[in-house]
Amino acid sequence: MKIHLHQTHQTIACFQDIQNYIFDVYTHQPVQGIHLFPESFLCGYPLMDLCLNYSFITSYQKHLQAISTWAQALPKDENIIFLMGGIKYTLTQDHLPKKIENVIYLLKPGEELRDIYTKMLLPNYDIFDEKKYFDPGKTVGIYLFNNKNIALMICEDMWPNASYELDPTTELKKTGQPFDLVINLSASPYDLRKQDKRIMRAQEISHLLKAPFFYVNRVGGEDEVLFDGQSFAVNGNNILTKLNRFKKDCVAIDLSTFKKTTYQNIDNDKVTTTWESLFVPNIITNSKKLPHLKPLTDHECLEAIEALGFGVNEYARKCGFNKFLVALSGGIDSCLVLTILKLHLTKTQNLEAIYMPSKFSGELSLIISKQLCQNLKIPFYILPIEDVKATCKSLFTKHLNQDLQGLADENIQSRLRSTLLLARANQTNAIAINTSNKSEIAVGYSTIYGDSVGAISLLGDVYKSEVYMLAQYINKAHHNIIPLEAIQRPPTAELRDNQKDTDSLPPYDILDVILEGILSYRFTAYQMIEMGLSAHHVLSVYKLYMNSEYKRSQFCPIIKIKPKSFGFGYRVPVAKDGAFYSDV
Amino acid sequence: MKIHLHQTHQTIACFQDIQNYIFDVYTHQPVQGIHLFPESFLCGYPLMDLCLNYSFITSYQKHLQAISTWAQALPKDENIIFLMGGIKYTLTQDHLPKKIENVIYLLKPGEELRDIYTKMLLPNYDIFDEKKYFDPGKTVGIYLFNNKNIALMICEDMWPNASYELDPTTELKKTGQPFDLVINLSASPYDLRKQDKRIMRAQEISHLLKAPFFYVNRVGGEDEVLFDGQSFAVNGNNILTKLNRFKKDCVAIDLSTFKKTTYQNIDNDKVTTTWESLFVPNIITNSKKLPHLKPLTDHECLEAIEALGFGVNEYARKCGFNKFLVALSGGIDSCLVLTILKLHLTKTQNLEAIYMPSKFSGELSLIISKQLCQNLKIPFYILPIEDVKATCKSLFTKHLNQDLQGLADENIQSRLRSTLLLARANQTNAIAINTSNKSEIAVGYSTIYGDSVGAISLLGDVYKSEVYMLAQYINKAHHNIIPLEAIQRPPTAELRDNQKDTDSLPPYDILDVILEGILSYRFTAYQMIEMGLSAHHVLSVYKLYMNSEYKRSQFCPIIKIKPKSFGFGYRVPVAKDGAFYSDV
Repeated sequence: MKIHLHQTHQTIACFQDIQNYIFDVYTHQPVQGIHLFPESFLCGYPLMDLCLNYSFITSYQKHLQAISTWAQALPKDENIIFLMGGIKYTLTQDHLPKKIENVIYLLKPGEELRDIYTKMLLPNYDIFDEKKYFDPGKTVGIYLFNNKNIALMICEDMWPNASYELDPTTELKKTGQPFDLVINLSASPYDLRKQDKRIMRAQEISHLLKAPFFYVNRVGGEDEVLFDGQSFAVNGNNILTKLNRFKKDCVAIDLSTFKKTTYQNIDNDKVTTTWESLFVPNIITNSKKLPHLKPLTDHECLEAIEALGFGVNEYARKCGFNKFLVALSGGIDSCLVLTILKLHLTKTQNLEAIYMPSKFSGELSLIISKQLCQNLKIPFYILPIEDVKATCKSLFTKHLNQDLQGLADENIQSRLRSTLLLARANQTNAIAINTSNKSEIAVGYSTIYGDSVGAISLLGDVYKSEVYMLAQYINKAHHNIIPLEAIQRPPTAELRDNQKDTDSLPPYDILDVILEGILSYRFTAYQMIEMGLSAHHVLSVYKLYMNSEYKRSQFCPIIKIKPKSFGFGYRVPVAKDGAFYSDV
Repeated sequence: MKIHLHQTHQTIACFQDIQNYIFDVYTHQPVQGIHLFPESFLCGYPLMDLCLNYSFITSYQKHLQAISTWAQALPKDENIIFLMGGIKYTLTQDHLPKKIENVIYLLKPGEELRDIYTKMLLPNYDIFDEKKYFDPGKTVGIYLFNNKNIALMICEDMWPNASYELDPTTELKKTGQPFDLVINLSASPYDLRKQDKRIMRAQEISHLLKAPFFYVNRVGGEDEVLFDGQSFAVNGNNILTKLNRFKKDCVAIDLSTFKKTTYQNIDNDKVTTTWESLFVPNIITNSKKLPHLKPLTDHECLEAIEALGFGVNEYARKCGFNKFLVALSGGIDSCLVLTILKLHLTKTQNLEAIYMPSKFSGELSLIISKQLCQNLKIPFYILPIEDVKATCKSLFTKHLNQDLQGLADENIQSRLRSTLLLARANQTNAIAINTSNKSEIAVGYSTIYGDSVGAISLLGDVYKSEVYMLAQYINKAHHNIIPLEAIQRPPTAELRDNQKDTDSLPPYDILDVILEGILSYRFTAYQMIEMGLSAHHVLSVYKLYMNSEYKRSQFCPIIKIKPKSFGFGYRVPVAKDGAFYSDV
């Protein structure tokens, strides 16, 4: 018997595409066996409030009915099933959703579509809000098909932690039934070091339930959240197959061709206390050096760049854009953004860079920007902002009788640049890509409505020290395509004479480890000082972080490549008494 | 015995203020009796991810300890208790929160602080995410104090709906115990028509449990969400006391002075299916007229204006600003924003208006703007944008060899205005207040980074037709302080010659009823067409709404005065296939 893993890639609510895919699989592929599709394949994921919208519900129900009608009309065939993720509604009389379940639908030729299992563990941390929308299932899922006993799971079901009352794997084991295979239909968000954990956990469950484990994950970029696919099958410690990363894919595996495996007796008691317990440690501490961020390996750099390129292309495509626009400053961030975009540009897409110098822009910035565009073969335009700035300044002097100085004078340059950038975007129907990095966003080192603008942020989950790692990796792989000066020069916003980032911030390697401590480890200032970091650095960074919430609250979507990112999964009040951080 | 209702007003995490309040109550007020404080009084509400922050946790635990130590040192007194809302942590060894409960803490002089009840119903719809952070209590709360049997509730406990497994009122009744009083400590978000529902439900519970009902709500503006106070006590149908709206307040009621009440035998079976079932209907349909929005009464206008003024002052104060800045266009929205700000201006605050005309700005816009500032006695400045715009345009012609036209030409005016506005804000350390209304936000009738900027939105939960109602109400109450021309002129963005809002939008009364249908009633296009609205209007509005998600995703916080608002409680994917709305 064959197991078909359908690693699908459809846009949320694009019902016609989803139906076509199903119909095509039945018509064009060798259909015998078990066809597995991702969690929420039938509707898309995450839907958020969309699943409460009665227009969406009506259209979705019609779509399910169309599939069901089609399936019923097929000749009966006992050798084929489709197991597909979807949601199931129970509505009130006035059409409000009384109950929504995250289920597995069974499609059998000649029969009506029906649901056979409801997801038991509903993740509700960070970007997840499943308890907001869904009701959990109370019983494990087992489905018998052609004498094969299938244990059913949906995504989180394989990741129990202390906040759940049950562990589906344990419950399945308790039934005492033998299983021929375990399946997990997933919509599992990507992060950089997650895939190894998925495989390890799948191997564990395979040993526990003494059966091969089939994992099907969806592909897609949904605003901030990426779904990487990377579906796989394991049997005990053996890895049977691995599917593509960030690409739709389909693989069939014959159950009869497996090598025999000896399942080990392992312990399932290692339930983590929280989802953070699953994080791969990212801060290195040892006695000889100050705590520092774990550097990205070459493999990780490659994967991160692939993820970012995939994410931005998904967003642009779904929003209907095929032209990208980047404000190039000659700094490493915008150079990296432009390069990543170029590396992922398809034939139908365009990319353009605009350099907007002021009198504070160094000669080097121009040289770097020009050189990069030459290297990348990208149109390069220059729009000097001095005249516009001078006109603005004279307005203030003339009409308000007060010169623009200090912060007002710095910020207006940044905002005039964004105004010109977006005028160009409007003029050419392009999408402007934000160039802020995670370190800047964390400390508010940007001008709101200035350099913080853009439709989507490519580097908003990449610390500044990682920006350098990615740039260096690209230069290794692509013959120094990024001018070395961009990597070597000291970072500067060039909003006043001889400005350097280090005037107001600690060196980036120190800044980044403090930020990672605050954001992912939730360290207190005291804990970080105990680790050897300077109290001055820790407290000043914590303060900048606490005081810049208002900028983050209006920031664009950030492509998420880490377990803990800014964006939808990060929720804090803007107005509060933030003094507690210094209560060490 | 006296019941003291402490309707408090403290900033989130401002632990020193909270302690001072408690100590002052004990020291300066007549202390005998039961002192009731709001839900989460000890920490603030809503905390969101802040409650997971270990710095916050450490500081909060110290604060609880300080209160406990203080209480223990007091002379024993059997006639005083404080019942205070707060959260209770159970931490893992590595300091991660294993369990957080929303509880009532009991403070008795001479004793340690301890929790006596855990909230049973955790709201998790719209702006609420309590299941994300808290674990629910499983048993009802009853506390015996000086022979008085007190039934304990926290906020949502009085609002059961079909999504909860239990109804605390029913569970309390089932115990068979007689109660002397029922208390509800709340942090209940404000909306315009909510207070009547609170009192009605409290009366119902008073009848059911045959005891007076004491309701204490907090006061505060937390970014978007307002807490209005309006604490009260009822006994059967009698209303014993009502506290202030949007102001801290404190009232003591003597239990022995109550008039006798006959409690009715009423039915508690009317459990609503969803929280939306509690909405007061807001669309009026009858056979003679097209569906339309329920007009605001004078009382509702007064209350809405008070709410908006309170909300914006809270946000500014907590963010450290005492100067407001408004871009005045001569349109009704900015006129209303300026007027509401002025009506709530305290002695230490300042307000300034800037008018930024282009060649498309009508003479009338200047006249209105100037007149309004005269009426309000507010400094009025003019910054004409033509020169700056001309400089920008020549940049494009000269350096990009392409004139700015059409949308690019319209939007750049709006973005130059925001650039100048924010430069002025930086120059004078002012907070710029956004002037968009709910109708514009819903259909994306604004320029992102242009007129959509601002630290907080005053009218983002007020439909355009309601903007007129509020303006007319103010003019009745304040001698036509808003120039009549602002109310009478046809709305226009003045970004091109003779532009009118109705060029691209239906008349606002029709637009607004369609929007309310989509947002609050979740009507499908089909349902609205069935109600008599034109298919062309319905479908074009639905399309504009679906396509403007990206603008809303970067919008500033919106002061919430309705059950269903944009902002934190509104969560939808930006990139999706939005065609389903037309699948009628």
